Amino acid sequence: MSRGDVPGPEDPAGATSQPDVVVIGGGPAGEVVAGRCAEAGLSVVVVERERVGGECSYWGCIPSKTLIRPGEVLAAAQVAPGAAGAAGAGGVPGRVDAAAAFARRDEMVGGYSDEGQLPWLRDRGVAVVRGIGRLAGERTVVVRAADGAERTLRPNRAVVLATGTRATMPPIPGLAEAEPWDNRTATGARAVPRRLAVLGGGAVGSELAQAFRRLGSEEVTVIEGGPRLLAHEEPFAGDEVRAAFEAEGIVVHTGRRVVTVRRDRSTQGSARGPVVVGLDEAGDPRQIVADELLVAVGRTPATADLGLEAVGLSTAPHGFVEVDEQLRVRGVEGGWLYATGDVNGRALLTHMGKYQARVAADVISGRVDPAGRPAADRCDSAVIPRVTFTDPQVSAVGLTEQAARAAGLDVRAVAVPTGSVAGSSVRGTDAVGTCQLVVDVARRVLVGATFVGHDTQELVHGATIAIVGAVTLEDLWHAVPSFPTVSEVWLRLLEAYGL
Amino acid sequence: MSRGDVPGPEDPAGATSQPDVVVIGGGPAGEVVAGRCAEAGLSVVVVERERVGGECSYWGCIPSKTLIRPGEVLAAAQVAPGAAGAAGAGGVPGRVDAAAAFARRDEMVGGYSDEGQLPWLRDRGVAVVRGIGRLAGERTVVVRAADGAERTLRPNRAVVLATGTRATMPPIPGLAEAEPWDNRTATGARAVPRRLAVLGGGAVGSELAQAFRRLGSEEVTVIEGGPRLLAHEEPFAGDEVRAAFEAEGIVVHTGRRVVTVRRDRSTQGSARGPVVVGLDEAGDPRQIVADELLVAVGRTPATADLGLEAVGLSTAPHGFVEVDEQLRVRGVEGGWLYATGDVNGRALLTHMGKYQARVAADVISGRVDPAGRPAADRCDSAVIPRVTFTDPQVSAVGLTEQAARAAGLDVRAVAVPTGSVAGSSVRGTDAVGTCQLVVDVARRVLVGATFVGHDTQELVHGATIAIVGAVTLEDLWHAVPSFPTVSEVWLRLLEAYGL
Repeated sequence: MSRGDVPGPEDPAGATSQPDVVVIGGGPAGEVVAGRCAEAGLSVVVVERERVGGECSYWGCIPSKTLIRPGEVLAAAQVAPGAAGAAGAGGVPGRVDAAAAFARRDEMVGGYSDEGQLPWLRDRGVAVVRGIGRLAGERTVVVRAADGAERTLRPNRAVVLATGTRATMPPIPGLAEAEPWDNRTATGARAVPRRLAVLGGGAVGSELAQAFRRLGSEEVTVIEGGPRLLAHEEPFAGDEVRAAFEAEGIVVHTGRRVVTVRRDRSTQGSARGPVVVGLDEAGDPRQIVADELLVAVGRTPATADLGLEAVGLSTAPHGFVEVDEQLRVRGVEGGWLYATGDVNGRALLTHMGKYQARVAADVISGRVDPAGRPAADRCDSAVIPRVTFTDPQVSAVGLTEQAARAAGLDVRAVAVPTGSVAGSSVRGTDAVGTCQLVVDVARRVLVGATFVGHDTQELVHGATIAIVGAVTLEDLWHAVPSFPTVSEVWLRLLEAYGL
Repeated sequence: MSRGDVPGPEDPAGATSQPDVVVIGGGPAGEVVAGRCAEAGLSVVVVERERVGGECSYWGCIPSKTLIRPGEVLAAAQVAPGAAGAAGAGGVPGRVDAAAAFARRDEMVGGYSDEGQLPWLRDRGVAVVRGIGRLAGERTVVVRAADGAERTLRPNRAVVLATGTRATMPPIPGLAEAEPWDNRTATGARAVPRRLAVLGGGAVGSELAQAFRRLGSEEVTVIEGGPRLLAHEEPFAGDEVRAAFEAEGIVVHTGRRVVTVRRDRSTQGSARGPVVVGLDEAGDPRQIVADELLVAVGRTPATADLGLEAVGLSTAPHGFVEVDEQLRVRGVEGGWLYATGDVNGRALLTHMGKYQARVAADVISGRVDPAGRPAADRCDSAVIPRVTFTDPQVSAVGLTEQAARAAGLDVRAVAVPTGSVAGSSVRGTDAVGTCQLVVDVARRVLVGATFVGHDTQELVHGATIAIVGAVTLEDLWHAVPSFPTVSEVWLRLLEAYGL
């Protein structure tokens, strides 16, 4: 069928029952696979149970980075003499106007409506069907609408699962009853809790802990079970973030587990009393009292109600949907079922979900490159860039030194202080952080890179290009960083390697 | 001779008269060539007439970027809701505390003393001889000290010219008598002129015009003879900077020439009356009255007193010293004379001077790479990254579209608004600028890239790596930018190209 037969999303009930592709889940990965398939001439229906745009747009990156930004830029002003005085002396990081930040957040999430997201799909002729989609057999999706009505879609070519993840709630006694915050409640906050406890020192927990500290929380405590913050990054990264946290009054407990949680509902006149977090016996304190408890310990794939059992797949509650390099779901015959984004567990990051979506769309549509070969026919999950938007930021790509060694690579790591270049000094007086390259000794190419420091978020893409392009150290030596930018750490790192 | 024989700079009079290498000029290029030669085991003497560290450290990048930073970060705060209110509503770009900025500048230039720069050379065993160095024949340098005493250095291996440039003063009637500012006076200012006129809309003029506007100058006027600001960059770059300038009250006149300059010395009680700048008849106004006039129309190589005639080289007053790809001076037999940095005219940028210095040092010392081949034996002057630290910044590398076509390349340019990515929106409300890639159509590799926008300075290094590494579009497609960073423009650009 031609694309013209697909009604726009304003008339979802009329969406064809036999498109080329059905995408279950309209978050970043779902939107991209749908839009790119449609651009390739296929007819596409997206099934969305909540909001087109998904977790990232309303309850993830977009609101969290919007809430982080004012504190970040005021902290940057505070260390730039000439701006510090103008911005008000002392304690700038705590002086964010929370109401203005929340208002901007509301703007950035479109008032929690997906109206602003629909035109992108509409312009590509993608139909949106509202409801809960579930697999009911080969190339068969049943959608249950809010009123309980069901309809069946039988795509000609492919079904793509793109349902994402939700916050994992660990089975701690009393936790559920205490109505803790998760990424949704935290990024959607309308008031700043005086005391915030954060369970989990990964990217989400660390970012939001600091954001609320800077939005005005007087007591912020992070509780992490592992030995340090940001456990998946280089050890120095978590250590440097911790030092910065402690310098601005955030308390960090590592190697501690939460064993009980209790919301105190006895307080007279308070709809929501304090929450008491009980810790293990590994150290002090034994309990933390906070006004809100944010749980950020990981993500669980959103596969409930997805009908995986109907196509013979496991329905283990925490099981991600396994895929191959073309994003085809493993264990399903016929190559018609794909999974992109968080739900496949390969890399729980918006940009990696969108990347997988582009690859999947090219595979589904049979796209060829100018040389006539299948375009983008591999999804490289070894080169995953990621930025933790704490201050200092942790921007990294590829393998950590330890991961590289664990993978059997002969690597050598070189590191320099981020503050060792003039580009850091001209930006302010407190350049912190470390930059590191992990080099494959035999091939003389990068396999990993980490940049910790204020606003290092744009430094990592050069490393991503170097890794993907297998650019040798000898060629990188001729890639001159501009003076005085922070990118000059590249020069220092190559010098440290011996070039 | 061994390095141990070279006295430290605290005893310059004792420096050997027959080192391996003599470097005339201790700016960034001179320091690096000296340090790297010494690290390779050569004995090195640097001859410096002024301050080790050179123009860049005292009167160039370092003070200018230090003066720019507070205005830049306050402008960034102003557009980040939540920070804007905290930083004070309205007019933040003008609210820099100039005294604090000047004090930080003084700190960054080491109080205009080079004491802080000497240890780097000292640690490498490089001797510093104070005085004016001039060539007096093959491998012969005569140094005249401040007291008129002369000594002769006869290096075994090489002489490196690294004397840099000074501001060009055009022969405009009355200009010299009006005691205009140049980069030295401007970056060294101790007060903010109420009215500042700037002659020249290149990088130096544009950066300082905006810096002083944000430091508090009430009237800033830029006069540029060419059709737009930043003439060597993509046309949209100059246009976008101009729009930003005008939005913050900087007046820009393009296509206008200054024909007369007169300093009014009649004002009673004023040591330094206003300066009256007379413009050509090409338009209005015909004159501009300012308190200071900054001249930033280009650079003249510092080759006076250098004794070029003694080795048979031209002494044309504006002639750069021509070099080959190994930085050897053309037209001098024996391969013993090198020139690095601004004085050779290849790329008047600190980082390119330092890059040339590394290449020259490797050539002089005969360094080999791990495979036994001459290391870094070419200086690639086609791939020049540069950042103009205006707001928006203009960060670019390689060829502009027009330059590529002029070079006979079949290129296609693709552009997207910098504000088209979430990474721009989360940083503030006024994302401006355009990002562009220039692609060699046949080879499917980049030959140029430009990123205009707030704080794009770290975006360009990825493009530099892509160009130097000849990374194809098909590989770049797998280099995923992190969400939500501004680097996601890479994805939009590749999509715009058709990937």
